[in-house]
Amino acid sequence: MKSDLDRLMRERELDAFIVTGGEEFNSARYYLSNGAQITHGSIFKLRDKPALLVCSRIELEEARKSGLDVKTDAELGYYERLAEAENDGIRAAARHWSDVLRQLGLSGGRIGLYGAWQINKTIALYRVLRSELTDYEFVVEEKATLIEAAMLTKDADEISRIRSVAERANQAMQVAWETIAGLRAQGEYLLNADGKRVTIGDMKDLARRELMARGLEDTNMIFAQGRDAGFPHSRGDEDMPLRLGQSIVFDLFPRELGGGYHHDMTRTWCIGYAPAEVQAAYDTVMEAFDIAVEAFGLNKPTHLMQEAVLDHFEAKGHATTRADSGAMTGYIHSLGHGVGIEIHEGPSISHLRRDDRFQIGNVLTIEPGLYYPERGYGVRVEDLFIIDENGELVSLTPFRKDLVIPLNCADGQPQ
Amino acid sequence: MKSDLDRLMRERELDAFIVTGGEEFNSARYYLSNGAQITHGSIFKLRDKPALLVCSRIELEEARKSGLDVKTDAELGYYERLAEAENDGIRAAARHWSDVLRQLGLSGGRIGLYGAWQINKTIALYRVLRSELTDYEFVVEEKATLIEAAMLTKDADEISRIRSVAERANQAMQVAWETIAGLRAQGEYLLNADGKRVTIGDMKDLARRELMARGLEDTNMIFAQGRDAGFPHSRGDEDMPLRLGQSIVFDLFPRELGGGYHHDMTRTWCIGYAPAEVQAAYDTVMEAFDIAVEAFGLNKPTHLMQEAVLDHFEAKGHATTRADSGAMTGYIHSLGHGVGIEIHEGPSISHLRRDDRFQIGNVLTIEPGLYYPERGYGVRVEDLFIIDENGELVSLTPFRKDLVIPLNCADGQPQ
Repeated sequence: MKSDLDRLMRERELDAFIVTGGEEFNSARYYLSNGAQITHGSIFKLRDKPALLVCSRIELEEARKSGLDVKTDAELGYYERLAEAENDGIRAAARHWSDVLRQLGLSGGRIGLYGAWQINKTIALYRVLRSELTDYEFVVEEKATLIEAAMLTKDADEISRIRSVAERANQAMQVAWETIAGLRAQGEYLLNADGKRVTIGDMKDLARRELMARGLEDTNMIFAQGRDAGFPHSRGDEDMPLRLGQSIVFDLFPRELGGGYHHDMTRTWCIGYAPAEVQAAYDTVMEAFDIAVEAFGLNKPTHLMQEAVLDHFEAKGHATTRADSGAMTGYIHSLGHGVGIEIHEGPSISHLRRDDRFQIGNVLTIEPGLYYPERGYGVRVEDLFIIDENGELVSLTPFRKDLVIPLNCADGQPQ
Repeated sequence: MKSDLDRLMRERELDAFIVTGGEEFNSARYYLSNGAQITHGSIFKLRDKPALLVCSRIELEEARKSGLDVKTDAELGYYERLAEAENDGIRAAARHWSDVLRQLGLSGGRIGLYGAWQINKTIALYRVLRSELTDYEFVVEEKATLIEAAMLTKDADEISRIRSVAERANQAMQVAWETIAGLRAQGEYLLNADGKRVTIGDMKDLARRELMARGLEDTNMIFAQGRDAGFPHSRGDEDMPLRLGQSIVFDLFPRELGGGYHHDMTRTWCIGYAPAEVQAAYDTVMEAFDIAVEAFGLNKPTHLMQEAVLDHFEAKGHATTRADSGAMTGYIHSLGHGVGIEIHEGPSISHLRRDDRFQIGNVLTIEPGLYYPERGYGVRVEDLFIIDENGELVSLTPFRKDLVIPLNCADGQPQ
């Protein structure tokens, strides 16, 4: 968590780190600046010292909401450096960083670089830093970065925000369920009160509105039906009408408005009734879900949980990417991932990532699934869990795990 | 525009380029993949050849919507490379890229790197590419990249999407105006139909809903009143009630849902009446706006437009960052910027960027402003323009430029 930063810097022998980037959403900057709504700016953090946020004058007022020390690039001499570098922004930025580091009292040492930025600009800056700031060593961590290591465990404030997002996301899912249950079937289609066929686009609009009414924003939900549900990241076809007896994978992973903490959950639904093959796959996935939860143990390597689930699916005759790295059907993704400011954080629950262990403060998904696009279906069930201060795995996703949404009105009249 | 890519590659002597990145919104990947909803994946483009999109198997179905050639990393041998590199993802990615380039028939040459990614991972990958893929030269453009150069001019399809976003954003602005005009004043505050004081948070909620109802998403609008309006990028205080006679800077820059093209516009409003000082500043800003439009000329350097506006503000006695690089009040930002998939693209209209010229196909803002936080106000007026096929500067922002929103009901009763 954030309070581990100085310890992690010591362990990694970092004297300082700099978080920078462009206007891309920058989880490291959001994290370090406590959610300040800035679109530029760099954070300079020396070990055991408070962080300094350097921003443009036009962002000063928002930058101050970070609670960090704040200075403008102008007052730190950036524009003189820009003139000196004949408006070469990359070279000016490197020299400006050197000025800032010296003003903070660091004339040499090992420095980590974090944030998100355009690839070309990052490399250009790195080359200038290496050639001009020769008193410093810019450190590249090839596995989890210092920031990722800190984000791996959430503090009480983060947990409380994630719990709140979870409650609101569960409510939005409930509205979607009730809305579908209240539809009227005509043949294999579902009609709204105006007698129009309800589409996936209608359901996505509804979910977006329900999220927004609760201060959350959709980040490109999945609502995929039939064959599309058989591709794990198919978003679903907006124009497709809902149909009875089709598997629907509804994966909702909103975040706080304007950027912030996420919740992540998936339910698989069949409206009216479930075909026997989908029901069987669903039962197998729910068994996998229970096996995963039972495989949990504090400090246990996460890959063992995935391996227990792989054993189960393979024993039931399903292809997996462990048995066949080219598999396109069966169980073809990892079992889960951490969730926070980014939708995919550490730890990973994968047989390909063997370094992660379950720790207090982790917030992570468990999401087994089975995918058979050519047979016209897919199934995934996902809850978000925290590992609480007692080391217990606790679900934040109480929403019911029924496959079938029964229609309120089986006689075809809307209620 | 996109059809210039091969020409630009020839001019820059690039044999190929690769667009990659993580889950961050990646405008280069969005652009090259024609808006496919993928969160991973890399695009390989050889000069005068069609582009290949390489994605994870779980994103295959969405990737195919790009219209590009698509292959999965699994079928191209990525997982064998991952095993060989003992699960070191960076090293595996570099070797995988080498495999892909060779399969595409490129065994050497100059390669550009684009996209957006975590800074640490970008540098780690660049170091492995340099040390292991020695048959290729990875080219770093220090000024505008190839992708930025292509994005500088929009094609007919892009213009038509931006026009549509513009219409819808103007409509949302109109609803905000009408909503305010329909409020009832009580003292210096504004009350809604329930008799509650209307806040900035209420207005932002309204604008977000109106955007969403039109298939657009807010990207963190500015609705800043009084002193806050005096800081160009202050987002505004959600809890602050609207007040009569205060300057409100309303900067709305939504994009298509889930990522896509933007519109960008700003209006400054005073509800009920405008204080003389705010009205005078507004008039000066509107003169600057007209001066800017008159300074337009096809192929003319953009910085001349900014300089005409700087001359005007300085003649009127306002501080500018040209006259004083440390200025915190007066006219303290550039005059405009390109708009597209990113909210800030080229060309820039700034006295610090002297390389840009106005070209057919540019889509750009003109947005002069004056900022006096200590005097409790700020003013900015912004339209989005295209330079059309006749070389004319055409506004996409017809919304009225009145400073004062008169209340429909001066006697204090809501209509």
